[in-house]
Amino acid sequence: MTPAEFPYNPYGVSRARFAVVPRVLVFVTRDDALLLLQRASHKKLWPGLYNPPGGHIERDETPDEAAVRELQEETGLQVQSLHLRGLLMAHAQNDLPGVVVFIYHAQAAGTLHKINDEGTPHWIPFAALDAIPTLPDFNQLRALVLEQPDFFTLYKIAHSDGSESVRVVYQRS
Amino acid sequence: MTPAEFPYNPYGVSRARFAVVPRVLVFVTRDDALLLLQRASHKKLWPGLYNPPGGHIERDETPDEAAVRELQEETGLQVQSLHLRGLLMAHAQNDLPGVVVFIYHAQAAGTLHKINDEGTPHWIPFAALDAIPTLPDFNQLRALVLEQPDFFTLYKIAHSDGSESVRVVYQRS
Repeated sequence: MTPAEFPYNPYGVSRARFAVVPRVLVFVTRDDALLLLQRASHKKLWPGLYNPPGGHIERDETPDEAAVRELQEETGLQVQSLHLRGLLMAHAQNDLPGVVVFIYHAQAAGTLHKINDEGTPHWIPFAALDAIPTLPDFNQLRALVLEQPDFFTLYKIAHSDGSESVRVVYQRS
Repeated sequence: MTPAEFPYNPYGVSRARFAVVPRVLVFVTRDDALLLLQRASHKKLWPGLYNPPGGHIERDETPDEAAVRELQEETGLQVQSLHLRGLLMAHAQNDLPGVVVFIYHAQAAGTLHKINDEGTPHWIPFAALDAIPTLPDFNQLRALVLEQPDFFTLYKIAHSDGSESVRVVYQRS
């Protein structure tokens, strides 16, 4: 590596390597309720199902910044506190990129949007969470974020033979 | 999404999105020494410099599995304990992927390889670490891994205007 290349590729990254798309997912709680977005009926993926707000991390922002932005865009709320609780790393089959999801627990202030292009935000009482249709990973992630104290990493690896590995590791300080 | 698509792209990942290449970096300590690899002189990136062992996470393995494999391949040691201490996320400029590095502290047993294609492993006494040529992020990462107890996330974002954001966030349980 020559100094002239340094600003452009300091980590020597190759486009040919397996990569993961970075995302955020934000669990916002208030009193005994969790903020979920009911996905718009026109969404190609999971129309009508409930999931916490979130989205892609852009090239010029940190995961924290993406969490603040996505929460504002999708729900209208302003983040008051933000705590990284864990990661989900999921590898896809074939030649698709995987995902790495930075998963937050947040407190937030403000009034909910009534509706937006992504869906409609709702405060769902904890007692009602089991009764609504949610995305496949939601219940496992909810337990990891809200019902245990440790930083977690959840790995889901889809192998080429069709099997899947699922593993949770807890990082205790 | 139709059920038939489910096994192939469960997270609806798009190749068009910003992605990060996942890697591991493993700080192995024994008594008062740290295991470092002196990079081979034929390496295009950072020839001759010292850095902990590590490498790419492959599609079919978790970060933990990659850490165990890379340590064995590069140094000959077998992992005895492995603790995820933090993450480095670095976004490149232009249209390159970024990197996300899972950073471990490990204990390991066995006898060091004399040399291999990646370089030569050495036990470096802590007192000598400041005297050897290391990669640019090494000193900051060493302090985060070995000199403070919390899980950390280190973000380095290269912006399109040439500026760089560097931010460390600590996650206390």
